[in-house]
Order: sequence, then C-alpha cells, then structure tokens
Amino acid sequence: MTSDLDNLRVVLVATRNPLNIGAAARAMSNFGVGRLRVVNPYEAAFREARSAVGAAGLLARAEQYGNVAEAVADCRLVVGTTAAGRRELQHRLRRLDEGARAIKRQLKAGPVALLFGSERVGLSNRELSHCHWVMRIPTREEHGSMNLGQAVAVCLYELVRGRKTAARTALGNKEKKSARSREVERLTQMLLEVLGASGYVKPRAVAAEEKLRRLVRRLELNVDDAAVLLGMLRQIAWKLGADEKVGPS
Amino acid sequence: MTSDLDNLRVVLVATRNPLNIGAAARAMSNFGVGRLRVVNPYEAAFREARSAVGAAGLLARAEQYGNVAEAVADCRLVVGTTAAGRRELQHRLRRLDEGARAIKRQLKAGPVALLFGSERVGLSNRELSHCHWVMRIPTREEHGSMNLGQAVAVCLYELVRGRKTAARTALGNKEKKSARSREVERLTQMLLEVLGASGYVKPRAVAAEEKLRRLVRRLELNVDDAAVLLGMLRQIAWKLGADEKVGPS
Repeated sequence: MTSDLDNLRVVLVATRNPLNIGAAARAMSNFGVGRLRVVNPYEAAFREARSAVGAAGLLARAEQYGNVAEAVADCRLVVGTTAAGRRELQHRLRRLDEGARAIKRQLKAGPVALLFGSERVGLSNRELSHCHWVMRIPTREEHGSMNLGQAVAVCLYELVRGRKTAARTALGNKEKKSARSREVERLTQMLLEVLGASGYVKPRAVAAEEKLRRLVRRLELNVDDAAVLLGMLRQIAWKLGADEKVGPS
Repeated sequence: MTSDLDNLRVVLVATRNPLNIGAAARAMSNFGVGRLRVVNPYEAAFREARSAVGAAGLLARAEQYGNVAEAVADCRLVVGTTAAGRRELQHRLRRLDEGARAIKRQLKAGPVALLFGSERVGLSNRELSHCHWVMRIPTREEHGSMNLGQAVAVCLYELVRGRKTAARTALGNKEKKSARSREVERLTQMLLEVLGASGYVKPRAVAAEEKLRRLVRRLELNVDDAAVLLGMLRQIAWKLGADEKVGPS
C-alpha cells in the first residue's frame, strides 16, 4: 500500500444495506485502500457485514460520522459519484478516467474524499454540495444505476489502473522467449517429413514447403512449445517409419 | 448497445451463489453487455436471483451449459480471469487493461468468451485449458480474491472505458478470422489421437490432454490454418491406422 492511497477516504453516505458496506470494504482491501468512513448508515451493526471477505479489520476500523461535512472535514478535495441520467446536476461532471487522473494528482498532496450515496437515491443535492466536482461511471443511459459495491470496485480500479506496482506483479513469468528461426525451421522440416511419409504431400514438394513454412511462422512459437512440437513430430515420424530420412537431432 | 459488445459472452463457471450471478447480470446490463452463459451453477434456480436489479430479462435469457467446451464452442477468443497469487498458472498472463485492448480488437471480428470461475477456487486448470490466455485484475498480492460480481463489473468497465475516444481501427483485410473454439477443440482431439497412436502419449491421459489443449490455444490459429492443420492430422491419423477412433468430420 503506497502513501498516495493512504490519503484516500472512501465515504459511504446513508447506505441502506450493510452487505454493501461489507462489499465496499472488500473492494477497498483488494485495491489497497484502507480508510473507510460511513455517514449515517441505516443499520448500526454494519461492522458485522458478512460480505467483507478478507476485510473485517478494515471494516472494524471504519470511522462513523453524523453528517457529510464532518466526514470530509480534513480533505482537500471532495469528489462525488453518480450514475447516468442525473441531468439536473449542478456540478461539473467528469468522466471516471479523467476524474481519476485529477484525484491521483491530489492524493500526492493530501487527503481526498470519494463519496458514494445511498442505494436508492444516490447522493442528494445537499450531500453533493460538499463536493468540488462529480465523477460519473460510464454506464448506459437506459440502466445507469450500479450496485454500490460494484461502483466502489470500479472507481478504485480506475485509481490503481496502470500503476507501476500492478504492472510488475502482473507481468507473467510465463511470457516465454520466442523460438529462434533455427528451431522453427527444424520444426518445419520435420513436419514436412511427417507429411511426406503420411502421403499428405509429395516428398520435397517446393510449393508445399513454402506454404508450410509460412504457416509454421504464423504460429509465433515460443522456445518451449517449439521443442514440444518437435518432439511430437519426431515420435510420429518414427512410428511412420520416416525417421531414417530425418536428419540427426 | 453496439454490435461489438454483442459479440461478448460472459461465462460464469460453477458459480456457487446465485446472488453473484444476479450481480454479474446487473453489471452486464449497466455496461451494455447482453449475453450471459452459465456452466453448471450450484443452484438450478439462479434465474430468480434478487440482486439482478434492472437485469431480470438478461438473466432470464441466460444460456445454460453442461461444460466449458460447449459454452465457448462458437467463440474465436476465450479469455480466463484470475486473482493475484496464482503462481502455478500455465497460461500467458495479461494485465486487465492490456488484455481488454486485445479483446476489443477481436470483438470486431466475432464472438469472444470471458470466463469467471467459482467464488471459492476460481477457474480450475481443466477449465482454464480452454482459454487462449488469462487476464488478471491488478488487486493486491495480500488480498487478491475479488467478489465475483465486482470482478465482472471491473472487467466490463475496462472494456467500455474510453469508448468514444478510442480510435476506430478496423480489422485489416490481411487479418484473418480466428478459429472458433469448436474447431480448435476438434484439432486438439485429433492431435491427441495421433499422439496416442504414435505412442507419444498414453490414450486418454488427462494431464497430457490439458497440456495439449493449452499448447494448441497458445497458437491462436486463424480459421484457415486450423483447417489445414486438421487436414494434416487426419491424414497422419489415417496412415497410422488410428482413423477408426476418430469421429466423423
């Protein structure tokens, strides 16, 4: 968890279903955001939400406030979130990806609050009045309203998206080196032998060989796969009795 | 809803909790993705999931399958999803943003399947063996496992993110269509027959079959090359006297 994200406060306002608070906590933990604030949740027992898989500690440390003003008092930037179709909005509306860029800049400097409203009505105009601007997840006009836990997950994902740490962990150790031309050509020749022995092509047919060579190159084989395929072809060639014609390995 | 996203199939494999299927359906509706497929859900009554707010129709139209092979048979690209920390993964691993770019390109050409595994264990190696590659949401190593509905929401968001600004690059004329999973699987089975007949693998060896299935998917074959390779294998099988075991073409 980096210091930048330590500056982010996820603020859930008037959430009705404690399971959604738990789901938000889980997404926060997934993406490395530790500070949850709740404003007047409908259920006092929200800390026991079963949906906070792996995030019980985060939920237990959640801070509770009586109103939005108190919940965002220490923050230098306050951003509201909304669904599609709120046309009466008085605020500057930013697309999620664009807004996230602005938030990331601000996180370097100090605390930022990201507000999510209640499941049924979202953030009221009064609650929104504490925000500098509003961010919108690009849902469809026809069905804009997202599940709260999913909305939190999507916003936090956008904030960690393309971070260097994420890139490093995601770089698979499975990304193998490509096979050398030498190996690819050996494979091509062996395939040609097998196809000759099986009667698929006439032995040493030049046009067939070129076609085959192009086909094998299109596979863009890595070293290991090339070796495995060569082994398979050797075995088939041996079974077909074509191995005498095949050069030394 | 654009035609591109009409080509996307969200495939939920062995989902335990029907509420998660409902949540996935809601996120799909939010982001304009209409085609849901489920493989062996734990509860037959999944269509009644209450969490599918605004997406009951989508859930009612969901298609049910008995196994992954059937669920992805018509797809030209099959992508698995995974959480952090699966180090034993045999597949090429792509970061979500990078993988989404590749998926978007393919959606212009034909059906793409995006697979999500069960809540407890994710996708098994056998299920993953039907995938061309695997996509990873950049969650923390310490708490990688996401809620299923949230994972679906984040992946679909990445696919619609920045749509308007995205450059309209059509598939080049030279770019051939990828083979459908049905054809790729037929090729896999034929290769397995040939390798069995030649003594390279024991007939019906499960581990070998999965390894082979992964290898064939890594080739990312186009329709024409898949057809040519299948023809080669048929001829080899015939020559090896294994063609009786081979199903009808």
